[in-house]
Amino acid sequence: MSTDRGGESAYIEWLRQRTPPAAIAIVGPGDDAAVLKRPDRPLLVTTDMLLDGTCFRLDEAGAFRVGRKAINVNVSDIAAMAGVPTAAVISVGLPRTGGPQLAEQLYLGMRDAADAFQVPLVGGDTNTWDGPLTISVTVLGEATTRGPVLRSGAHVGDWIMVTGPLGGSILGHHLDFTPRVREAIRIHELADLHAMIDLSDGLAKDLHHVCEESRCGAVLLSDSIPISDAARELSVRDGRPPLDHALSDGEDFELVFTVSAADGDRLLRAQPVSGVTLYQVGEIVADGLWLERAGQRERLESRGYEHRWSSSPTNR
Amino acid sequence: MSTDRGGESAYIEWLRQRTPPAAIAIVGPGDDAAVLKRPDRPLLVTTDMLLDGTCFRLDEAGAFRVGRKAINVNVSDIAAMAGVPTAAVISVGLPRTGGPQLAEQLYLGMRDAADAFQVPLVGGDTNTWDGPLTISVTVLGEATTRGPVLRSGAHVGDWIMVTGPLGGSILGHHLDFTPRVREAIRIHELADLHAMIDLSDGLAKDLHHVCEESRCGAVLLSDSIPISDAARELSVRDGRPPLDHALSDGEDFELVFTVSAADGDRLLRAQPVSGVTLYQVGEIVADGLWLERAGQRERLESRGYEHRWSSSPTNR
Repeated sequence: MSTDRGGESAYIEWLRQRTPPAAIAIVGPGDDAAVLKRPDRPLLVTTDMLLDGTCFRLDEAGAFRVGRKAINVNVSDIAAMAGVPTAAVISVGLPRTGGPQLAEQLYLGMRDAADAFQVPLVGGDTNTWDGPLTISVTVLGEATTRGPVLRSGAHVGDWIMVTGPLGGSILGHHLDFTPRVREAIRIHELADLHAMIDLSDGLAKDLHHVCEESRCGAVLLSDSIPISDAARELSVRDGRPPLDHALSDGEDFELVFTVSAADGDRLLRAQPVSGVTLYQVGEIVADGLWLERAGQRERLESRGYEHRWSSSPTNR
Repeated sequence: MSTDRGGESAYIEWLRQRTPPAAIAIVGPGDDAAVLKRPDRPLLVTTDMLLDGTCFRLDEAGAFRVGRKAINVNVSDIAAMAGVPTAAVISVGLPRTGGPQLAEQLYLGMRDAADAFQVPLVGGDTNTWDGPLTISVTVLGEATTRGPVLRSGAHVGDWIMVTGPLGGSILGHHLDFTPRVREAIRIHELADLHAMIDLSDGLAKDLHHVCEESRCGAVLLSDSIPISDAARELSVRDGRPPLDHALSDGEDFELVFTVSAADGDRLLRAQPVSGVTLYQVGEIVADGLWLERAGQRERLESRGYEHRWSSSPTNR
């Protein structure tokens, strides 16, 4: 397949088809983190790049919050495997005009997030250039003794659950969220997690990723999806229904996971994770991605955040 | 200390002073790669970011060679620890105008370099943005059973040796070099390597890094420094002496290492590494960085590539 249909998804698919399985990798590209064989516990590796103007606006967010986000989006990927983050390396491209204050605030924000999870910053690469601020973080982690939770383990009949209300993160949550590391480990101790992903692209699209990897479908229950205050606020501003924001806004950084109905029911009643409410939002089915409203199922587009590129500047 | 003296070195020093030692890290920031404790062999982690206009010029080099360089600069850092690279993750910021061809050629270049060292690309993050091409690679590696070679182990009386001729890499070598992975492992089998670094900032500056970490000095012997054809060619163009290029041009990606005089003499005579000539270029002394010409020592500036930032756009 060629990428000339455009878009990053097509490119990533092209990459995956060209990338042979590696002996060292239990899981390669296509999950929240790579899972590498080690003599003891599997090693988790994830990387995410944040770019000014795309993933944040430096002038609005400030360097401290950007630094925190750069660490937290990666830590969230480790959480999505129910893993423990253990170390981070960082590379940055600093705009020449930012001066020492930008560099220092960025570092302090990264340290703030990393310290909250006892993740030491063990190395990095600092560059100065004429372009906007760019930050790439790689976080290493370890699976717990129960093993990493992949995207590919969902079964028909599983309950689909989330760790918190969704939508509207652009109003601030996307910079200030707390990765669900402790929550994931706790739930993983209490239940057999079949599949998990963190919500970076939006519920519909991220659930679509789980369905693709698990070769199944999903039904979301419109009345059960927890809608954040920010999604309601955004709805007032832009006239789109709050549910729409909860389904398709990106960067909630809550976890979506699937468990057996029995485990799901137990988790829902017990609410065993302090500070977090677990919600059932749907069920795994054989195929398709559906939204159920008042007993009627309608097809759900796997909407969400998708960059597209063009081959000529005029198409920007 | 504050970074307001400007420059990346000051910032990196500021970072290091603020970064507490981590229990997991045998070596943290400040060497070619971090060295992390593992139940079996130490894990090596290194990251490098390449930015269009600073580390390469996309329009001149082409995406394939840029991709290759992005992998190879990181593999070279693993070589500098005499380690074996085992896996890589990649994050890219693609210019919106590049189209699928840029993305594909970049990937194929990365694969070309990675395949040469059997380094699987196990994960990544793809972004599209309005800025220039930016690529960040993290390479994991393992120390051999002899352990990683650090910058900090040089002793007074050690010979300083390099793996090849130096200077002028801007004429093409900086894009097309081969990291000295096999060479480092072979030399490490044959001799007790005390300290090693790969030449990214230029001989004088990189040797200065070794001296700082090892708390010692060095004398370089002007007549013994191998000068590349490219350094001579550049000298004809710009009138600077070829030796100047060999001392201060960056991105040779040869290795500089120190060994006992006995080991050095043995390596020099035996030339045990096929395809590579080893040269003695100087000796470790108690302090200072010196260049010896015709029996006279003069102070050597730790010149080399250094980005500087300014706090206002007018100072660019």
